Amino acid sequence: MNKLYVIKIGGNIIDDEQKLGSFLKTFAALDGHKILVHGGGKLATKLTATLGLEQQMVDGRRITDAETLKVVTMVYAGYINKNIVAQLQSNGCNAIGLSGADGNSILAHKRKHESIEYGFVGDIDAVNTALLQVLLQQQMTIVTAPITHDKTGQLLNTNADTIAQEIARSMSGLYNVELIYSFEKSGVLLDANDDQTVIAKINPAYYAELRTKELIFAGMIPKLDNAFAALQSGVHKVIIGKAESLQQLVNGQAGTTIQAE
Amino acid sequence: MNKLYVIKIGGNIIDDEQKLGSFLKTFAALDGHKILVHGGGKLATKLTATLGLEQQMVDGRRITDAETLKVVTMVYAGYINKNIVAQLQSNGCNAIGLSGADGNSILAHKRKHESIEYGFVGDIDAVNTALLQVLLQQQMTIVTAPITHDKTGQLLNTNADTIAQEIARSMSGLYNVELIYSFEKSGVLLDANDDQTVIAKINPAYYAELRTKELIFAGMIPKLDNAFAALQSGVHKVIIGKAESLQQLVNGQAGTTIQAE
Repeated sequence: MNKLYVIKIGGNIIDDEQKLGSFLKTFAALDGHKILVHGGGKLATKLTATLGLEQQMVDGRRITDAETLKVVTMVYAGYINKNIVAQLQSNGCNAIGLSGADGNSILAHKRKHESIEYGFVGDIDAVNTALLQVLLQQQMTIVTAPITHDKTGQLLNTNADTIAQEIARSMSGLYNVELIYSFEKSGVLLDANDDQTVIAKINPAYYAELRTKELIFAGMIPKLDNAFAALQSGVHKVIIGKAESLQQLVNGQAGTTIQAE
Repeated sequence: MNKLYVIKIGGNIIDDEQKLGSFLKTFAALDGHKILVHGGGKLATKLTATLGLEQQMVDGRRITDAETLKVVTMVYAGYINKNIVAQLQSNGCNAIGLSGADGNSILAHKRKHESIEYGFVGDIDAVNTALLQVLLQQQMTIVTAPITHDKTGQLLNTNADTIAQEIARSMSGLYNVELIYSFEKSGVLLDANDDQTVIAKINPAYYAELRTKELIFAGMIPKLDNAFAALQSGVHKVIIGKAESLQQLVNGQAGTTIQAE
């Protein structure tokens, strides 16, 4: 099977023009098939504030009312997605930007929760692997915005980490998938404030031990849970590390590698 | 050759949720290959005002400074494009939205003018017909936002009528192209205030006569010039008419048909 990189880039990198430019240059130069999934960054929050809209957060998730959905659709699927695509094109990478509505690439449903109203937040039902494969076969690089749809005309705000995971899982029947979560830290850290304490490798037994001893930074737990779930579903490798070290992450010279065994 | 509809939809329809919904339902049901090109509507203007940005217009064209480009990228390529795509998906039409940067679908350069500074406005150099053909062959319907790029990472604001014309021209070597400009009027009118005075057919000789007698509404002249230029470049048919009558426009039962001879 051909190799496919599914790479998630976090909001802190997107907010930093210089870091983003440098990341995209490295990303553009990576050999082989690749899909970039981007988060939101602060622009949506800023724009929401400038427009005088109130914003609520629960468990780090924006409560997406109709006006907020408008803003995130504009910012994520419009401004951020198209600027990333244009920059990749300028680096000789034939990128194509997609929301989940485009070509029905990611079908979702509005989240139902017994006590919390999340608003227009989507949980993923299906990834259109046939479409992604056609685009990859055309030597295109896919850039996915964290906006999905439900096939009734409703757009939905969807967590970018989850999108990366679902794409990686779904594509693992067709490709040898490496899922990379790139963000502002050097990897999974023993000390959240010390970038030198990167754990090079984590397997399920070690993860259980780290959790029991409460050595894992709370913000990392969903990422690691997702990583193990992805490996269980056929993803070949999961790497977590610094966006600026993308080439080293790919080469296995930096970051944390999550292993199935 | 297979038939391809290239259909431009104007801003006034986009601003009217009900009319847009009805148009998209008819559009979704049209048989065969199709490309929808949409304009901007008033949301960008409103958002620009809400954000306190000044806006200048020259010859009906927005002067696109860096902040305005941000707004139009968000609104055109984000909000409007993704909502149209999601609505088409809900009508069983497998739509995919593109800006000119996506897959390098429309390459442009920043307009140079000896006396007027247009800002980040793009004039089109090339349409990526190979990409559009691949997507159409996958039974996808393309939805194009009026944002292009220049391959150096710069996005550019580009007139949607011109995009429709350039796509129609470029695709006419591969398909039997019908170019339809759908907007709020019933077609080319003898009396701009009377929707009953539609001219059913215009050829170059009749157009010259109408212009000499100053019987053509000034706003129509660029559309007609574009229409004749498109016919000269191989487009099979150009139709101008009301968005709400799309099915009748396609059937030749409404609107104005522009003829090469």
